[in-house]
Amino acid sequence: MRDVNKLIDKMNQVDTVFELAPVLKKMPIVEVGEILNQLDEMLLFAVLDQFTPKQQGLLFAEFSMKKMIDIFQTCTKKRFAIIFENMPSEIRADLYQHLTQDEQADLLPYLSKPIRENVIQLSAYPPDSAGGIMSTDFSTVKITMTCQEAMEKVRNDAPSKRTVYYIYVLGNNEEFIGFITLKDLILAEPSTRLDQIVHQKFIAVKVDDDQEEVARLIEKYDLVAIPVLNRKNQLVGIVTHDDAIEIIRAEQTEDMEKIMGILPGEEGADYNTTSVWQHFSKRVVWLVSLAAFGVISGIIIHRFENLLDQLIILALYMPMVADTGGNSGSQSATVVIRAMALKQFSPSNWIRVIWKETRVAFLVAICLGVLAFLKVLFLSWETTIPSNFSLFQIALVIATALSLQVITATMIGAGLPLLVKRLGGDPAVVASPAITTVVDITGLLIYFGIVTTFLAGFVS
Amino acid sequence: MRDVNKLIDKMNQVDTVFELAPVLKKMPIVEVGEILNQLDEMLLFAVLDQFTPKQQGLLFAEFSMKKMIDIFQTCTKKRFAIIFENMPSEIRADLYQHLTQDEQADLLPYLSKPIRENVIQLSAYPPDSAGGIMSTDFSTVKITMTCQEAMEKVRNDAPSKRTVYYIYVLGNNEEFIGFITLKDLILAEPSTRLDQIVHQKFIAVKVDDDQEEVARLIEKYDLVAIPVLNRKNQLVGIVTHDDAIEIIRAEQTEDMEKIMGILPGEEGADYNTTSVWQHFSKRVVWLVSLAAFGVISGIIIHRFENLLDQLIILALYMPMVADTGGNSGSQSATVVIRAMALKQFSPSNWIRVIWKETRVAFLVAICLGVLAFLKVLFLSWETTIPSNFSLFQIALVIATALSLQVITATMIGAGLPLLVKRLGGDPAVVASPAITTVVDITGLLIYFGIVTTFLAGFVS
Repeated sequence: MRDVNKLIDKMNQVDTVFELAPVLKKMPIVEVGEILNQLDEMLLFAVLDQFTPKQQGLLFAEFSMKKMIDIFQTCTKKRFAIIFENMPSEIRADLYQHLTQDEQADLLPYLSKPIRENVIQLSAYPPDSAGGIMSTDFSTVKITMTCQEAMEKVRNDAPSKRTVYYIYVLGNNEEFIGFITLKDLILAEPSTRLDQIVHQKFIAVKVDDDQEEVARLIEKYDLVAIPVLNRKNQLVGIVTHDDAIEIIRAEQTEDMEKIMGILPGEEGADYNTTSVWQHFSKRVVWLVSLAAFGVISGIIIHRFENLLDQLIILALYMPMVADTGGNSGSQSATVVIRAMALKQFSPSNWIRVIWKETRVAFLVAICLGVLAFLKVLFLSWETTIPSNFSLFQIALVIATALSLQVITATMIGAGLPLLVKRLGGDPAVVASPAITTVVDITGLLIYFGIVTTFLAGFVS
Repeated sequence: MRDVNKLIDKMNQVDTVFELAPVLKKMPIVEVGEILNQLDEMLLFAVLDQFTPKQQGLLFAEFSMKKMIDIFQTCTKKRFAIIFENMPSEIRADLYQHLTQDEQADLLPYLSKPIRENVIQLSAYPPDSAGGIMSTDFSTVKITMTCQEAMEKVRNDAPSKRTVYYIYVLGNNEEFIGFITLKDLILAEPSTRLDQIVHQKFIAVKVDDDQEEVARLIEKYDLVAIPVLNRKNQLVGIVTHDDAIEIIRAEQTEDMEKIMGILPGEEGADYNTTSVWQHFSKRVVWLVSLAAFGVISGIIIHRFENLLDQLIILALYMPMVADTGGNSGSQSATVVIRAMALKQFSPSNWIRVIWKETRVAFLVAICLGVLAFLKVLFLSWETTIPSNFSLFQIALVIATALSLQVITATMIGAGLPLLVKRLGGDPAVVASPAITTVVDITGLLIYFGIVTTFLAGFVS
């Protein structure tokens, strides 16, 4: 990374980039892309022109979506079309989807017919579906071929294809039959017919499957690429292992943001490029709605204003009960959400999960209850309390309330995500902050409930 | 999954599995592994015996570590050695590391010399280093070969190798020179010498690099496999794309657990197989230490007991201030931790980050401050307050305190992870619960600080 920055400085110093071209040409595409992404348009094109159209397409594909669109808007459509045609099909379609209808209309005339059709076809799929992320850059052979013929076909395809390690086998009516690996092909006798070696047991996805399901299958079966079929079971694309990693990363960030009550932003958004205002709007929504929701706690507290006024010590321990509930609730929520995300159980097993969480909760509740009891004795030994009570009594009541709070909070933390999932929502949204607010309310009810019952005599 | 369960039921019904063998043989190894993993030993071996030793090794590799060890302990070492020798090298080494020294000693005599050496070599590396996860199952060629000779070599290696898509090129002294892809090989003229086409610009890792760095490189450069070099720059293994996904998944769970204050458990531990007691011990540690830490808040609150006693309304809003601080603090912590994990900035940029977070915090603080102000007016209009105050005054004071709390909490949430990272720790550990507890303390100090200054006249 440091070298990259050095290089960029250097490029901005020299008024011409020609002397740098040879250096760049020796570097991996990914890194050159990183550098160009940080150059201004003029300099950028000066560099791009040093590369072949094919390379230009690959380099361009490394840029951020924002950068791609900026460049599209500044340079001539004719010039852009050359880059565009050489981009990986799935990124090309993704960019196309980000253009306005007018911009799309401006670009299309400059594209060759096959590319135009390809772009329109791919950009028709929702971005987070298998169709939306698949590449059409794969190699096919006919089932009637011999291995030798197949190898010939692959040799012809290879230069223009990124991966030729899986080769897809089609029947006479273009129907998808299965695949062979390049390894099979080099091992087989040249005269062997493909129907002898084709793998007809294969893992595949449908165009409208969710991208996370696609990633899960690639992960589970250690695939290099997975075929994508349309409703007629024809092969329309493939998703490769590197896409799977991208999806898992995005998913990861998304889940964590949801769990912390942050609205998901532009996919793969970078902390630095996200403006203060965007950061603000991503976070404030939750915070405000939680604050609004908090009014309920406020009302409850006010209901017991007199009690607190008479027995101030109870007020002092409200925050403790609230926090402890929040922490234990968030924990079980995280564990359950995570387990569901990894498909370790389905919401239909909810009874087993709740039962397990309840037992965990009991153990936790005992520990924290004892701790709270000692805490009250230790902290409040000086506190003035009405003569008709012993501190011991009050400590016991507070500890009991806290233990109950831990148990309910844990069960709510585990139950809420299950419920949301059951209702077809995304469990991650009912996460830490939401749970905290909910258990604040239940916590207060329990707290005052216990107190009033046990100290009933006192409450006037 | 449903079919899998069906099959298992069926297998437990039939007293013999022979009739099922053909069904299983047609299924992907991964799925058969899933099924066997849930059978008892006797049944399991009855099924295993239906497969070739090679397949047995692959099937066995699909089991959970616990299951593998159980089986090792129950079956004869001689029988086990057959399976063991046919397992993928990295999983084999991983299992070996999980055995006791005595168990290792029992097994070694039954292994062939090359396997024994391989296992001992691999299990010498720390489990989360490149060496600890690498496979020794790759194919090499000599730089002096022609493409035809190389292809011959690959053909001979292929049947025993999982992937032959990257072929590694060694010099005369076994030094690592670079790689060629199988694609290069089928495209090149048979007579071409390898030094003409070898890729000498390659991405590689060192045996003791951290596994997360390995995954990051595979991800960044879209690699199918990455070579692992020892200190003498000799090729000792490769890590493949599917390992990268596994690492990223593990990392993901680990981070989330840390963020929620859950001690990381056995890697890839399943919710269902984790016992209540394990769940308990994973969570209680944090909860207890937080509760203990909470004593500080308790002390502070008691310091201002009289104030609260005289001005009960202040007590009523303590939880609100605490919660809001916790929520906004956790948010910024998550954002910063995430951004660092994705290497979007290094701790050395901390000033830029804190500055950005501060601006975000100000915007958030204004919103929540106003909200809090209205909340107090709305909730407490009935509350009896000393004549020398207006509710308006008090609402203003509380709102100001809350706003300040939001700002400090956000900065602490962003700063703490940066600090920990700076000190060489893992930022994820200072996560939600930790931050919540810290900002509880600062929050109370701010709250009472503001109150006493503004309502100074009153405080006696």
